[in-house]
Amino acid sequence: MFKVLEKDGNARYGILYTKSGYIETPAFLPVASFGTVKTMPPNSLKEIGIQGIITNVYHLHQRPGEKIIKKFGGIHKFMSFNGVIFTDSGGYQVYSLSNLKKINEDGVEFKSHIDGRKIFFTPEKVIEIQIDIGSDIFMTLDECPPYPVSYEYAKESLELTIKWAKRSKLFFDEIFKGKNERPLIFGIGQGSIYIDLREKGIEILKEYDFDGYGIGGLAVGEPEEDRKKIISEILSYYPEGKPRYLMGVGYPEDIFFAVKNGIDIFDCVLPTRNARTGLVFTSYGKLRIKNAIYAEDDLPLDPECDCYVCKNFTRGYIRHLFSSGEYLALYLSTYHSLYFYSKLMKNIREAIKEKRLLEFEKKFFEKYKIE
Amino acid sequence: MFKVLEKDGNARYGILYTKSGYIETPAFLPVASFGTVKTMPPNSLKEIGIQGIITNVYHLHQRPGEKIIKKFGGIHKFMSFNGVIFTDSGGYQVYSLSNLKKINEDGVEFKSHIDGRKIFFTPEKVIEIQIDIGSDIFMTLDECPPYPVSYEYAKESLELTIKWAKRSKLFFDEIFKGKNERPLIFGIGQGSIYIDLREKGIEILKEYDFDGYGIGGLAVGEPEEDRKKIISEILSYYPEGKPRYLMGVGYPEDIFFAVKNGIDIFDCVLPTRNARTGLVFTSYGKLRIKNAIYAEDDLPLDPECDCYVCKNFTRGYIRHLFSSGEYLALYLSTYHSLYFYSKLMKNIREAIKEKRLLEFEKKFFEKYKIE
Repeated sequence: MFKVLEKDGNARYGILYTKSGYIETPAFLPVASFGTVKTMPPNSLKEIGIQGIITNVYHLHQRPGEKIIKKFGGIHKFMSFNGVIFTDSGGYQVYSLSNLKKINEDGVEFKSHIDGRKIFFTPEKVIEIQIDIGSDIFMTLDECPPYPVSYEYAKESLELTIKWAKRSKLFFDEIFKGKNERPLIFGIGQGSIYIDLREKGIEILKEYDFDGYGIGGLAVGEPEEDRKKIISEILSYYPEGKPRYLMGVGYPEDIFFAVKNGIDIFDCVLPTRNARTGLVFTSYGKLRIKNAIYAEDDLPLDPECDCYVCKNFTRGYIRHLFSSGEYLALYLSTYHSLYFYSKLMKNIREAIKEKRLLEFEKKFFEKYKIE
Repeated sequence: MFKVLEKDGNARYGILYTKSGYIETPAFLPVASFGTVKTMPPNSLKEIGIQGIITNVYHLHQRPGEKIIKKFGGIHKFMSFNGVIFTDSGGYQVYSLSNLKKINEDGVEFKSHIDGRKIFFTPEKVIEIQIDIGSDIFMTLDECPPYPVSYEYAKESLELTIKWAKRSKLFFDEIFKGKNERPLIFGIGQGSIYIDLREKGIEILKEYDFDGYGIGGLAVGEPEEDRKKIISEILSYYPEGKPRYLMGVGYPEDIFFAVKNGIDIFDCVLPTRNARTGLVFTSYGKLRIKNAIYAEDDLPLDPECDCYVCKNFTRGYIRHLFSSGEYLALYLSTYHSLYFYSKLMKNIREAIKEKRLLEFEKKFFEKYKIE
């Protein structure tokens, strides 16, 4: 169940209730494809204030396999994280990671990038996998077309994605019919950069009455202007009372833009993946901690941050850890960047509640410099 | 200052006071060559109960350089660890890691294994580096001969090490003369497997009145029997009121043996390095968590352990993390193995205090199987 509690323009503050507790929205989900947010023990996630994470059917099906996770009592127990857990359907990973895809009406066959084995995903199979995983929020299998793609291909692909979404929902409803407690299921819209396709997609998806709606296939290489146009034009087609999840996005500037247009949920590898390369987020913008200028810098990563890392370590020390190939560098950078995102979302929620989002955005970007 | 508070046979329970607080002995020091116990944020070390660690002149001189550490207020502040910090002199690392060593009366020239640069260490230089690092316990520069080595070479090498120890102590005393607060300095004895050389070494070192004595050059490939013979025969030559530090050793069985003979301090990479390869220590012996038999095992790494890792994660999950190449595997395994060592040392100290060390040892090895 989802409740929009406050609005500030089109921006919404809400609460999304799941079988494992709730998340306040707008929310940002760190990525935990293999059942771990890379480098982060779950007690660190808790300290940071992470409400929810997103794992992945594509990855978990291959390692360790959903039957193993089920045997261990589900993903929450398996990874010892008691927050809200989404599962991405793997549609995007089939497109971006696997080889030799063969797509037909029934599903998609692909070769694993992990061990080369052939795998066949159908919409129903992907629901079954998520049931075994035991996540709180399921995503439907979609086809994620590359960018650029012709209108014709995007249209056919969208039609397939919509059919798969319908099959997913019917299959899901059949299984959970009459059950008191059930996970939530989100349908994913596609349509590349073609606004009429995006709109058509959501109009049909709405009929299936999903618990929420994912917007997929963005941040795959399309120009920023196209992405912004889609986000600003299509959200009015979405049902007001359901959460809207912009998948795979993004930078703080993307998040502000999308929140103002009515997006409730985000996920992205940016804070974690970038941190592991030494690129961290700070109140003043991105910071490349490996740069030689930080060797003798005794400031914390972000002088305005009150996280464990910023309270205890200098830029000079963290740079030293990177220079020496030390694992702790990855942990400290990831911890800080996740805290930065967590605090950003918290501040955004507070600002919406107090109807001062634009003011907060202005203040944020007075310091934070986009490169 | 060191106080032996209880004895059980030759085993001693004591307290070693330093400028950064005290450690209770027998103690085990995790290795933090580059100023970090690999994968471990210092708040985890605190949780685990780590009293002290050992960093390394060889590594820190090269990265980030002792002048940088000094600029940051010393090693404790730099790495945010407020326990006791030893610095190894790097003599062993010059022998084991570097290339093209040239040893003369004055010192040792070597090529860095990190960046190939030529470095010249003298006993005095190594003291100066440790002053800049700001550690609590300094070790003197030694020459660590390989195994096997001729009696003649071992004798000459020992003579050099002793001369260097004398120069180190004189230089150290000159610098800290009249100072209220000073670090401690330990002299290192060598002599390969030749007991008369070992004894001769300690007889001379004693005259220089070090704060403690390191036993170096063991666990370098010599037969276990030779090592045991040395440990059991030479300790009676050491001054009763000074701590004895067996460097680079070792396994739980080595620790019991050495404690019973009167060793007070240990360091070793075993718990940390092995953990990163998936080999962890448990109440029942070593466990190779990558083994396929653990894929569906829902026990913790050590069913009798009450650490964070054992209370929250299964063998199956940790094996999955290793299989998936996840960093968290390294953290969780290291955390547990360090906790195992920390608890082992605590139990040894309690047993000595209650004069039941042999009983505790017997009980320990009823479960713990040595391979």
